[in-house]
Amino acid sequence: MAAHQDPRGWPPLREEIARALVGRGIVCEPADVVVVGGAQQALDLVGRVLLDPGDTAVLEQPGYFGAALAFRACGANLVGVGVDAAGLRTDELARFLRSRRVKLLYTTPAVQSPTGVVLDETRRRALVALADQHQVPILEDDYDSELRLGGPAAPALKTLDHAGQVVYVGTFSKALFPGLRLGYIVAARPLLERITAAHFAANFQTSPLGQAALWELIHDGILERHVRRVRRLYAERLAALVEAVGRELPEGTRFSPPAGGTALWVELPPGADGDAIFTRALEAGVAYTRGDSFTLDGAGSDCLSLCFANLSPARIAEGLALLGRIVRAHTQRAVRTRRVKTRGMGT
Amino acid sequence: MAAHQDPRGWPPLREEIARALVGRGIVCEPADVVVVGGAQQALDLVGRVLLDPGDTAVLEQPGYFGAALAFRACGANLVGVGVDAAGLRTDELARFLRSRRVKLLYTTPAVQSPTGVVLDETRRRALVALADQHQVPILEDDYDSELRLGGPAAPALKTLDHAGQVVYVGTFSKALFPGLRLGYIVAARPLLERITAAHFAANFQTSPLGQAALWELIHDGILERHVRRVRRLYAERLAALVEAVGRELPEGTRFSPPAGGTALWVELPPGADGDAIFTRALEAGVAYTRGDSFTLDGAGSDCLSLCFANLSPARIAEGLALLGRIVRAHTQRAVRTRRVKTRGMGT
Repeated sequence: MAAHQDPRGWPPLREEIARALVGRGIVCEPADVVVVGGAQQALDLVGRVLLDPGDTAVLEQPGYFGAALAFRACGANLVGVGVDAAGLRTDELARFLRSRRVKLLYTTPAVQSPTGVVLDETRRRALVALADQHQVPILEDDYDSELRLGGPAAPALKTLDHAGQVVYVGTFSKALFPGLRLGYIVAARPLLERITAAHFAANFQTSPLGQAALWELIHDGILERHVRRVRRLYAERLAALVEAVGRELPEGTRFSPPAGGTALWVELPPGADGDAIFTRALEAGVAYTRGDSFTLDGAGSDCLSLCFANLSPARIAEGLALLGRIVRAHTQRAVRTRRVKTRGMGT
Repeated sequence: MAAHQDPRGWPPLREEIARALVGRGIVCEPADVVVVGGAQQALDLVGRVLLDPGDTAVLEQPGYFGAALAFRACGANLVGVGVDAAGLRTDELARFLRSRRVKLLYTTPAVQSPTGVVLDETRRRALVALADQHQVPILEDDYDSELRLGGPAAPALKTLDHAGQVVYVGTFSKALFPGLRLGYIVAARPLLERITAAHFAANFQTSPLGQAALWELIHDGILERHVRRVRRLYAERLAALVEAVGRELPEGTRFSPPAGGTALWVELPPGADGDAIFTRALEAGVAYTRGDSFTLDGAGSDCLSLCFANLSPARIAEGLALLGRIVRAHTQRAVRTRRVKTRGMGT
């Protein structure tokens, strides 16, 4: 335990992870699993192995800021592909892949970060087919499957992966806590060996102390009980948040309950001054993540990611009442006139 | 503790580290310290910030294999500069720096890894002067200062650093254990900010759990007591090893007790078959690190790094008796004929 260990992670923990992944439809052995220091290190290592400076990586837009951070640190050019109610727009992706060589596709299919939408079945198949056709590895970030609120998670994209194109990343930061810094990677063996070598060069191994503690939590069934409790708690909090957003934010605000995760994605009505709202809200003690943190081009300043994980329903109601007043004060009525949507009509 | 924290590390621990560094002659504030996942992650992060693919990094030869691993992963070209009884050969380095642009100098001045020699005072000053003159950052890996066996460690190179060229790296892997995965970096603020950003992109932060545990060990004086005990223990073990090597290995074997560290560097006599000896020794249950693990060009297969950290004097004597027989069996007498040394004589 004290000495250097297998750089792939503590074997008993890798066994438990492989066993637990059956629940996500993923059949793998402990030898297919590498334990790393959180999902962020997984993204960093996969990026370092698959991306050279100047290579192109595709991300969802809006999408997880940590992925942009990691791949940019590898010197990659980042390109965003849109997200709608059915998840990543595979039609847009297909067009892009026809014209440009892409080295990595990053996606959060089970609960899109930050919008919370689920990649639908047709697109899941389309995405894997595109990856196979263009020989582009997919990084599937399944950061939140265990906490999924509205019923069982869709099977992992990895379950559709017959060509070994999908690199699956999981984490315990959501089910337990981010300070634990434990995540894992499942990938085809040759790639996993390169990831292991990169991990060894980067910091030899993940500390076995936390791994052993986590193993006990899993092995003794404590994690499972905890996840059941947290899931119930989060569902209550999300319900309170959805109700409060509907009640407090002005007409024209768009949102829909996420399939999981710990945040609600909210689009303010046209005319909302995102900068002023963010500043005033912080001053009033209401913190959220700005929508433009999730985009490559700075769009989304009129969107908010409202985290409900550590707030009671009462605190949520209180915060939203404050936020509602601030949003109303900083939304220009003039611009709120409805514009006719012309998208898809003759253009 | 459970949530994400300051990416520079847990503030109380950084305070204790800054305080402890006074003992190494380094005056710094907690804000000058970043806690990372072991010295290896420190090398990786410094490499990622200072080295672009194709850049040249200089390392000691023989030198620490982890540094070569980390800088190679950054795409750097590695160049070795020799080490003699006074440490890194600054004359050789000076010649090299006149002809080539170097982006990073890696050195282990207090206890050279793997030879255990100390960089002498003249060379310490020459090294810092060279770094200033050629504007090359020095990475000072002070991995072992706390355990120094033969009296107080020489002051850190960092104490001679007036231009902010020295990046100082420390670790708790030696004083405590490698599985802890905690180390730290002290550097000039602008560079430290870039290192912090690279750390955040790579894995957000080092787990605060281990940091808090370590803080208690330092704060309660337990680490200091432990280091005193370990230092005594290691001195005994090293003495037993030195005696056993002198007794069991054939004439012509060269070694000298290291100033610290946990290993003795041994050069076998000419004619020793390093490959055969390593294989036979492993079969007999005697493990050591091959000398060629510490070189860029594969030289040093006739050298051994014998770790004495976790072996009792009795086990050391037993192992060396076995190793002595194996070395004798695989050293050709013919080649052991003494050759006249001509170095420095008219050439």
